[in-house]
Amino acid sequence: MTLTAARPTIPAERHADRLGRARETLGRRGAAALLIGTGADLRYLTGYVAMPLERLTMLALAVDGPATLVAPRLEAMAAADSPAGEAGLVEIAAWDETDDPHALVAERLRPQLDRTAMDARLLVSDTLWAMHVLALQDALPGRPFGLATEVMRELRMRKDAEEVALLRLAAHAADRVMTAIAHGPLIGRTEAEVSAEIAERLRDEGHDFGEFGIVASGPNAASPHHHPGDRRIAAGEPVVFDLGGPLGGYKSDTTRTVWVAGPGRASGPDEEFLRVYDLVKQANEAATNAVRPRAECADLDGVARDVITAGGYGEQFLHRTGHGIGLETHEDPYLVGGSPDTLAEGTAFSIEPGIYLEGRYGVRIEDIVVCGPSGPDVLNESTRELLVVSG
Amino acid sequence: MTLTAARPTIPAERHADRLGRARETLGRRGAAALLIGTGADLRYLTGYVAMPLERLTMLALAVDGPATLVAPRLEAMAAADSPAGEAGLVEIAAWDETDDPHALVAERLRPQLDRTAMDARLLVSDTLWAMHVLALQDALPGRPFGLATEVMRELRMRKDAEEVALLRLAAHAADRVMTAIAHGPLIGRTEAEVSAEIAERLRDEGHDFGEFGIVASGPNAASPHHHPGDRRIAAGEPVVFDLGGPLGGYKSDTTRTVWVAGPGRASGPDEEFLRVYDLVKQANEAATNAVRPRAECADLDGVARDVITAGGYGEQFLHRTGHGIGLETHEDPYLVGGSPDTLAEGTAFSIEPGIYLEGRYGVRIEDIVVCGPSGPDVLNESTRELLVVSG
Repeated sequence: MTLTAARPTIPAERHADRLGRARETLGRRGAAALLIGTGADLRYLTGYVAMPLERLTMLALAVDGPATLVAPRLEAMAAADSPAGEAGLVEIAAWDETDDPHALVAERLRPQLDRTAMDARLLVSDTLWAMHVLALQDALPGRPFGLATEVMRELRMRKDAEEVALLRLAAHAADRVMTAIAHGPLIGRTEAEVSAEIAERLRDEGHDFGEFGIVASGPNAASPHHHPGDRRIAAGEPVVFDLGGPLGGYKSDTTRTVWVAGPGRASGPDEEFLRVYDLVKQANEAATNAVRPRAECADLDGVARDVITAGGYGEQFLHRTGHGIGLETHEDPYLVGGSPDTLAEGTAFSIEPGIYLEGRYGVRIEDIVVCGPSGPDVLNESTRELLVVSG
Repeated sequence: MTLTAARPTIPAERHADRLGRARETLGRRGAAALLIGTGADLRYLTGYVAMPLERLTMLALAVDGPATLVAPRLEAMAAADSPAGEAGLVEIAAWDETDDPHALVAERLRPQLDRTAMDARLLVSDTLWAMHVLALQDALPGRPFGLATEVMRELRMRKDAEEVALLRLAAHAADRVMTAIAHGPLIGRTEAEVSAEIAERLRDEGHDFGEFGIVASGPNAASPHHHPGDRRIAAGEPVVFDLGGPLGGYKSDTTRTVWVAGPGRASGPDEEFLRVYDLVKQANEAATNAVRPRAECADLDGVARDVITAGGYGEQFLHRTGHGIGLETHEDPYLVGGSPDTLAEGTAFSIEPGIYLEGRYGVRIEDIVVCGPSGPDVLNESTRELLVVSG
């Protein structure tokens, strides 16, 4: 609870400002309205954390009309109590169990839509469920649909001071979990047991909950998104830990790879592992050092990939170098070949090169980095040196 | 861990059977294919538990072609290790970071689609994200889209023996949590603190994780989906607990309302609360007693609602009487006016009438019930009598 007390909060005026900028961007792009379901976009614009259930909750924001928050009757109180609800920035429109909520959205938008061109797009949030997308397409026939990301990404990609502060708190909490877990005990425990300990420690360190805790031992470490199972960790193999979750809504996400050597460090890392580890570490550092405003995301991916390719493992670096992070674990921008994005001050993302040798093992090292005014601000502080642990 | 060992598992042949029945239903309905993203439908059909991330994972099941599981390269190993992957029921098609996964889905379906009528629908899973829905609409132009629910609901609504066994285990685990929490300590603790204890206890009792733990005290109890906050529980008020989560993937969900009277039970429940509690309990019992094969879901809602309306609180029963439950907390069928559904042996759902008096308090009592061969099989066993607790 003391952890909670020290947390920065998103001040009320941010939501007014964000709604205003969303309207502006809509207008600039010639789109008619945003249709935002539950999730990170809704929380970003209104502060409202709605349950992701099948009943429609939707912010309908027309380019030149009022903002309406459509909510099921039994959540109308909660919607009204949200930051944007309390500040009078959105009007709550409650629907009853036998109403058609998609028709209600259409009806609320009608006066504004009647004043816009038929080809002005309606932008739905990226994670809106198909059941709502198809129902809205039926309720608003003839209107072209697009994704809200084209408005939201610009806003959400540049974190403000409170957002960076929350990301930093989350990263430091995750670092404490990583350090505790990496120091064992590990030998003889199943991946699933260690993963459960990660979840508990994430919460104890102030996370809202433990969202994920990948524990991939030995050959499982060759699968970047391995699901922790019944395999028991043994001496003489590496373990990849990839863990995180939300803290005040903002996500942590960090990966370290350790070598489990057993008592007396008898079963130490083999030569190829040491070479692979070093390459991944160099790739992580090189990409981090290339972070600055206006750096291209595709180039950052290239910087990490070049290091690993030069070392002879280009084919085994299976994934992109990183992803944006904030209210979602994965959000824009992505550090991947072909990305059109460039960094700006306040852009937050992961840098997480990896090498995966199928049937043997893998290595990944991941930090969250914020683009500062002239270089990287690395939020994670646990060691990136190879830990060879005894048990 | 002992809890885990005793768990029933879904036998491998179920997935073959489910995929077969899905194809059959597709054919019967004149639809061309199922396009199933991550989530409960995918787990039901293939046993694959994929991360709900932005990279597309999709089962493409044509009415008369092979089943393809499209997966990002870095999850291809995990997809191949899934029950349906291991059993050779699906072919894995991996895509690389710079590929277009929606085009890959279209390409895989093309041979089958070329043989079906252009107006044969493509049915996407209900919770598929808009970013995938719109991209698939672009990749498969001119094809009408519908929701997979019209195929999946028939299959998933009738639970088989292993599914009922898992739901029962989950319900009993949730009952133990409820009983422990309801007996306090409560006075002086914040809702959020008690909610965190619920999450921890759910895990300790064998849940995969603690998914939700509503703690709504005093006036907050008038909001059915209240988000637990900093309010401290006091003597002389009721608290609604609504808690649950997955166990082996299958969900628990139970609600009890207790009165917190303080030491010596000095601040007991007022007369209206006793009347309201009794009405809700009667409504819960009446609906439960009406459960049998071929009973109509709308009628069950009516049975509960009639009890509460006759007591004078019809307007304060803000929501439907219940929802189906299984791999999702809320799934078909819904016990709500206008529902077209009828029960069959194996249908599993909640019965959860409630009365909400704004500004004062609320009462809800929720059980999970399975429709047996001739009547209800009530999975929850914690007391439905009013608990007046001292602290």
